[in-house]
Amino acid sequence: MTYGYVGKAARIDLGERSVSIEEPSESVYKNYIGGRGFGAFYLFREVPPKSDPLGPDNELIFATSVITGIPIPGMSRFSVVSKSPLTGGYGEAEAGGFFGSELKAAGFDALIIKGASETPVYIWIQDGKIELRDASALWGKTTKEAQSEIRKDLDDPLVRVALIGPAGENLVRYACIINELRNANGRSGLGAVMGSKRLKAVAVRGHRKAEVKDPEKVMAISKWFAAHWKEFPGAVTRSTYGTADGLMALEISGLLPTRNFQGGSFSKAEDLSGETMKDTILIGNDGCYACPVRCKRKVAAHEPYETDPLYGGPEYEAIAAFGSLCEIGNLSAISKANELCNAYSLDVISTGNVIAFAMECYSKGILAQKDTDGLELSFGNVDAMLQLVDMIACRRGIGNLLADGVKRAAQKIGKGSSRFALHVKGQELPMHEPRGKAGVGLGYAVSPSGADHLQNMHDGAFIKPSKSVEPLAITEGVDPDSLDADKVRLFVYGQLWWGLLDCVDACKFIFIPHPAGVLGTNHLVELVNASTGWETSLWSLMKASERALNLTRCFNVREGFTSADDSLPERLFEELSFGAKKGSKLDREKFHAALRLYYDMIGWDPDTGIPKAAKLYELGIGWATQEIATA
Amino acid sequence: MTYGYVGKAARIDLGERSVSIEEPSESVYKNYIGGRGFGAFYLFREVPPKSDPLGPDNELIFATSVITGIPIPGMSRFSVVSKSPLTGGYGEAEAGGFFGSELKAAGFDALIIKGASETPVYIWIQDGKIELRDASALWGKTTKEAQSEIRKDLDDPLVRVALIGPAGENLVRYACIINELRNANGRSGLGAVMGSKRLKAVAVRGHRKAEVKDPEKVMAISKWFAAHWKEFPGAVTRSTYGTADGLMALEISGLLPTRNFQGGSFSKAEDLSGETMKDTILIGNDGCYACPVRCKRKVAAHEPYETDPLYGGPEYEAIAAFGSLCEIGNLSAISKANELCNAYSLDVISTGNVIAFAMECYSKGILAQKDTDGLELSFGNVDAMLQLVDMIACRRGIGNLLADGVKRAAQKIGKGSSRFALHVKGQELPMHEPRGKAGVGLGYAVSPSGADHLQNMHDGAFIKPSKSVEPLAITEGVDPDSLDADKVRLFVYGQLWWGLLDCVDACKFIFIPHPAGVLGTNHLVELVNASTGWETSLWSLMKASERALNLTRCFNVREGFTSADDSLPERLFEELSFGAKKGSKLDREKFHAALRLYYDMIGWDPDTGIPKAAKLYELGIGWATQEIATA
Repeated sequence: MTYGYVGKAARIDLGERSVSIEEPSESVYKNYIGGRGFGAFYLFREVPPKSDPLGPDNELIFATSVITGIPIPGMSRFSVVSKSPLTGGYGEAEAGGFFGSELKAAGFDALIIKGASETPVYIWIQDGKIELRDASALWGKTTKEAQSEIRKDLDDPLVRVALIGPAGENLVRYACIINELRNANGRSGLGAVMGSKRLKAVAVRGHRKAEVKDPEKVMAISKWFAAHWKEFPGAVTRSTYGTADGLMALEISGLLPTRNFQGGSFSKAEDLSGETMKDTILIGNDGCYACPVRCKRKVAAHEPYETDPLYGGPEYEAIAAFGSLCEIGNLSAISKANELCNAYSLDVISTGNVIAFAMECYSKGILAQKDTDGLELSFGNVDAMLQLVDMIACRRGIGNLLADGVKRAAQKIGKGSSRFALHVKGQELPMHEPRGKAGVGLGYAVSPSGADHLQNMHDGAFIKPSKSVEPLAITEGVDPDSLDADKVRLFVYGQLWWGLLDCVDACKFIFIPHPAGVLGTNHLVELVNASTGWETSLWSLMKASERALNLTRCFNVREGFTSADDSLPERLFEELSFGAKKGSKLDREKFHAALRLYYDMIGWDPDTGIPKAAKLYELGIGWATQEIATA
Repeated sequence: MTYGYVGKAARIDLGERSVSIEEPSESVYKNYIGGRGFGAFYLFREVPPKSDPLGPDNELIFATSVITGIPIPGMSRFSVVSKSPLTGGYGEAEAGGFFGSELKAAGFDALIIKGASETPVYIWIQDGKIELRDASALWGKTTKEAQSEIRKDLDDPLVRVALIGPAGENLVRYACIINELRNANGRSGLGAVMGSKRLKAVAVRGHRKAEVKDPEKVMAISKWFAAHWKEFPGAVTRSTYGTADGLMALEISGLLPTRNFQGGSFSKAEDLSGETMKDTILIGNDGCYACPVRCKRKVAAHEPYETDPLYGGPEYEAIAAFGSLCEIGNLSAISKANELCNAYSLDVISTGNVIAFAMECYSKGILAQKDTDGLELSFGNVDAMLQLVDMIACRRGIGNLLADGVKRAAQKIGKGSSRFALHVKGQELPMHEPRGKAGVGLGYAVSPSGADHLQNMHDGAFIKPSKSVEPLAITEGVDPDSLDADKVRLFVYGQLWWGLLDCVDACKFIFIPHPAGVLGTNHLVELVNASTGWETSLWSLMKASERALNLTRCFNVREGFTSADDSLPERLFEELSFGAKKGSKLDREKFHAALRLYYDMIGWDPDTGIPKAAKLYELGIGWATQEIATA
């Protein structure tokens, strides 16, 4: 009898059309916990170095954790891990919804998918049984059409489906995986990996009850959450206004990414805010399994951009990426872009970025209408923006160029356009401006999957010492602009904590103190112990997070990444051109000193950024040294 | 209102005869917790580099923690920290009994004592008031006489007294501090520091009730302990047979230090065992505040070595140091030696060692009767052993030479006698044989205060993965003989955990899984939180332990210690001459590789062993880098 986890992982070879089930040892669960931990472990050990991310040797790992599916808010998420076609390195993304808990209910903690099918297939998992089914008729379909047909095919409207649309099929390098039509494993181009394997969807349905060791404890925390979450102002705001709840605060402080990161203020910001959405197109809230916060949006946008509420509403990242970044102040159009991304399985952050990049190239005369299939790619051109989304998903015209991301597009365009390609390791920047939150910059630089706002500390989360971060030994606040040793110290602590949340696949909104955290670090330990019957501690869990982080690093080192890849776009070292933070920039020397100190603090060689053997041995993963020594 | 701690530390300058009271900030409590943490913090910041340990600039710090005095077994201990006259480096020792909890009840978390009085004094602390009182009449008295007179002087038989006897007054470099006549802050020569300050005693009495945030939680753990501790076989054995409960197991496995560490087996071992003591001289158990285990012994030894039960019975360390190490199989004589040590304030471990050292020198012809004041210093000579204890305390004859410890004695004697001086950094070896428990050897080498069995992991504690160590992320057992990377890894984890127990001043017997641990790491976190109202975690507490360890290291670095001081006596690299482990030895190359790996794992320069700036900044003690940069 295992508590907290099923004890089974399914290996599916799409080339061989074979399925086998393995039972990871208890120590794998204890050392890796789940999610990112599982993904990094299997990916590093099993994907041969220098494999083509879009080739059959790459693995696509779906993983849940030892607390996934327990009836507590924020515990229904899952990780997908693979070698990223966008960065060529470690790729990872989490998604909420219901798929994670359903996968466990269907009898598996993880799926390890390799090979490539000759014809389109989908995987059908039901109560411990796994079947590969023909998806030829689904190929080319939007996520909504495909999901609907799969449910019809299986004669079960409650099947949970994680799938791709045309963007994934067309190997758009930042294609995502969509579940319930509105939740995305957004970053890293994982949808393209699915496309390369001709895997249209993973459909799951199960009736296994989550087996926890101490159901009373779980229930008590659940009840506590239900009774108290409204006392946390941030959680209420998020529930009321969604993730765009802080958009106006960013605008006012001059940190709203605008005009492809040229400035930090957008004249139409107010038209994009969570408050405006609530007053205009919002028709309801949506949420994840067991969560009363329901921070997700349901919208019905206005003419001429009507949207289908099934695709959900845009979150902050989509609003800023298609909005301020492209200088578009039309929330309906943005909702339409968001819908298209969900229908085609495109990552909204990268998609908004490539469009803003193209617009800046156009505005600088680097691209002309002859290059853009006649589109007038001015900042603010709503219809051009929407057309581009479509062209990218279908790799049509200039969309084909942009479908490979800003880094590759700039390389092809030349003419100095790289200056306008805002990415780290090839992955486009999220909608958080480092010139004013320096820790976010460091986070973008060292995130194993390239620029990602969900893998690292946001300075704001530690501005005030708080009861919620006390378990992390944090008794002082931080200066957002600083990159001094104290900032790097808290960055390291914060990174391990955020990384832990990806190992347990818990929602960061539930656990991060600013702005909306409700549960604390000790709640997490209690939940893991109540679920598993273990007697683990935050210390041990943080070690698991550190172990996973080091394996992601080892993966990238083996792929040939160096310290030079932990760099930031030049623009971030230049002054913000407008907004309240006008003139603000990152200091190159301080950034490099901070990067070096970060390596040194975390146990990596301060010159090369390669994990030291001593650190890997300390974490019990000394075997990894051989892998990177032969790189 | 503070919970868990008083919020007050007293500064006492014996030269100025001044007392001031300061209130450490909350962050000092959170970052250092107490005990070792407090001691290392104040000592490093306040004692000028290269100060004479026996001079007025040295500080003597008595410290309790945020859980000292709560009514839970094992929480009445306290730390004394000072620059050691034995090693010239960081010195520290803990003691049990009732003094620690009484000090807090008297209104202080810590005493920071500096300067030196011209005439003997004692410190009288009662309910927040501090007085320096004349001790001229007490000087030269045994601990029993002095304690009795102090209690008479203060007209209170319940005053708790920590004090020195003649050995401390005579600046024997391994003089200890005794409380209740039978509990010792044994190692590091702290009694000599008291002697140098002409401080005979610290007497405390208080009525402040321990203020805890969550008394129900404390009570629940207390009740749980009372109800369950007898289910832990090791705890029962320890209660029944005392700390010599494992002596015969050591004998059988060939690891009982014998004939000055020449071998690991003693023909009369059975005469020294806890079982034999119970059957012969034991008249009762004794224990610490709030502890039902009562592992300490009360004995009445037989003719011609009658002992006073008030001085307690010998623990394992005393039994082996005066027994097998000197090849003496007479438990009564050993009890007498133990009594003398407690009466004179001599550390039993160092005292037994210097006698065994002298005996080996005698047996090798390096010392002759002309050097020994006529004593025939053969191994096994009971009367010579007892006479030497007396001569050392009074610095009489050869006792004067031996009173400076084996390292200095060997330097004076010459003739190759250093080979027989078993010490690390000048402190004599405890009664745990590293040739068969290699982690103990590494522990001796890197302990900041020189060879010490209470600051580092014992291999046995991790032989079997256990529920109690699960919170330390330990899922595998260890090979006692190994010094490989996995051993060093667990050593690092174990060292931080043991070090944490010295920061909270908790009894290791209560928390270490082998052989007698009852409470686990998470109990400790619960107790700290219940006591203080904090929401700390094992992660944060382990960081505090790491912080303290690094400050002890910085202290030694500033004093000029180098990696070469983290060495072991040559004998440990030579074969054990007899016993079941005959032929066993430490491998020099493996030891040095392990030492280097240890440095690297813990964030110290692998070549020099100096804490890296990145590690100190990570721990929030970056200010310490300046101190060691100017060393």
